[in-house]
Amino acid sequence: MSVLVVGSTALDSVKTPFGEVNDTLGGSAFYFSAAASYFAPVKIVGIVGDDFPLDQLDFLIKRGVDLTGLEIAKGKTFRWGGVYHENMNHRDTLFTHLNVFETFSPKLPEAYRDTPFVFLANIHPELQLQVLEQTRNPRLVMLDTMNLWIDTALAPLKEVMKKVDAVILNDQEATQITGEINLIRAARKVTDLGPKIVIIKKGEHGAFVLAGDEIFAIPAYPLESLYDPTGAGDSFAGGMVGYLAKCNDISMESFRKAIAYGTVTASFSVEQFSIDRLKDLKMEDIETRYRKLAEMTRF
Amino acid sequence: MSVLVVGSTALDSVKTPFGEVNDTLGGSAFYFSAAASYFAPVKIVGIVGDDFPLDQLDFLIKRGVDLTGLEIAKGKTFRWGGVYHENMNHRDTLFTHLNVFETFSPKLPEAYRDTPFVFLANIHPELQLQVLEQTRNPRLVMLDTMNLWIDTALAPLKEVMKKVDAVILNDQEATQITGEINLIRAARKVTDLGPKIVIIKKGEHGAFVLAGDEIFAIPAYPLESLYDPTGAGDSFAGGMVGYLAKCNDISMESFRKAIAYGTVTASFSVEQFSIDRLKDLKMEDIETRYRKLAEMTRF
Repeated sequence: MSVLVVGSTALDSVKTPFGEVNDTLGGSAFYFSAAASYFAPVKIVGIVGDDFPLDQLDFLIKRGVDLTGLEIAKGKTFRWGGVYHENMNHRDTLFTHLNVFETFSPKLPEAYRDTPFVFLANIHPELQLQVLEQTRNPRLVMLDTMNLWIDTALAPLKEVMKKVDAVILNDQEATQITGEINLIRAARKVTDLGPKIVIIKKGEHGAFVLAGDEIFAIPAYPLESLYDPTGAGDSFAGGMVGYLAKCNDISMESFRKAIAYGTVTASFSVEQFSIDRLKDLKMEDIETRYRKLAEMTRF
Repeated sequence: MSVLVVGSTALDSVKTPFGEVNDTLGGSAFYFSAAASYFAPVKIVGIVGDDFPLDQLDFLIKRGVDLTGLEIAKGKTFRWGGVYHENMNHRDTLFTHLNVFETFSPKLPEAYRDTPFVFLANIHPELQLQVLEQTRNPRLVMLDTMNLWIDTALAPLKEVMKKVDAVILNDQEATQITGEINLIRAARKVTDLGPKIVIIKKGEHGAFVLAGDEIFAIPAYPLESLYDPTGAGDSFAGGMVGYLAKCNDISMESFRKAIAYGTVTASFSVEQFSIDRLKDLKMEDIETRYRKLAEMTRF
């Protein structure tokens, strides 16, 4: 089955203790697609400016990613700049230039509307609603968001949360939206807002999913070298939703494996700057690390 | 096989957002024993004052804990007071009255000296060395410590670390002792100090063990209600070492299960104040939660 992702498509400038890159491929939709395309055909909806180096997307095209829905608008591409400090858990945003993203109004090509797996990456909840209105009978809709929308657009965010099957949040977002510090209680409260399935990402501490009475928890893949955490969450989501689409099954049994695959794709993503590590990865690299993760958590 | 623990034996006064207790059973050796005694016979070495309410130890005696090595000295019992704030991850120490603990010099009764499993709970490294000198051919010696000794007694701490098989540290201690923020690298650097096995506790984020090239990682048991985190690490260590002693096997296969049992005993410990939850727990409660943890982490 195929996956539709709508999200940001950007050029990032990132500095970490290990180096610095400028105007490199970034944005939630690109990270997600790079990861998901190892598992299933992906369709992107997004917007870039006429300054965007389209040849940087060749690796996605080669992996069967459909870019029909990537609008090329007159003007500059969305640019984000950030710096990570020593412990890599915190970053400061240096600039956010929305540019063409400011007037983005997602339009799904006709051939996209029946896509069974839909990932609403982190964009304004009003835009996420617009996307949903253009889909037809998706099998699974998963939503991501960020602190900015919880702060500034909570009403439309809650509106769209009522209409999705699953939500993926990091620990801080889960606490921010529910007021609960305890993450299990926070996840449960998120299900009260509508979605039956809640995935909580805890960065280097792993992730868990809560659905009804069932919980599945997994540690992060242990890494000794982490170069750039940008996009880790989107790479995680890409591996997860990509796997669900591949097996066309949204049972908790599949979610367990999907979250393990997401853990693995995210672990590769942070090993190099930008999306670079997800460009030349082989499926067997993913499978090898998946088996190692299974072995590392077995008791 | 039996387990020897040497550590603090205290009366704690603890305040959390959920309540407050005064002069209640505390100290690493009591927490450890309460947990370990579900799995194996335990021998305690410690010191209390003549003000200590010995009847509070009846539950340990009933579970076969040997208190021969618990010295009752003239004077007051070691008292610690602390307060946990809203997120329960940080605590402020309100007071530490060492009292009779100030002149503690651990003496192992003759019948203790051949105990095969030895846990050096968090006390001054010089005392840990004294204990080691009195043991005969232990099968496994595991050491715990704290930030205070890393700050003030690093030389004897490194001395004793050379002589033990395993070390258990929390994330902050591991970083403090190695200068490494990345916990996998920190754990590896700890093995350079001597111990072949390093267990890193991450509180609500679980734990991992590193031994040679092998890593086993486990999330914490998901809890919605946590009343008092005091002693969680010692309850974890107690479940872990207790299980290792029970099966008399220190292979990584056993360590995996041991860490899962430690995770479970710690999860019970924090559900009530002091050691209360570990007083009336049934072994079948532990086994049930162990099976749930296995189910929650399977993929």
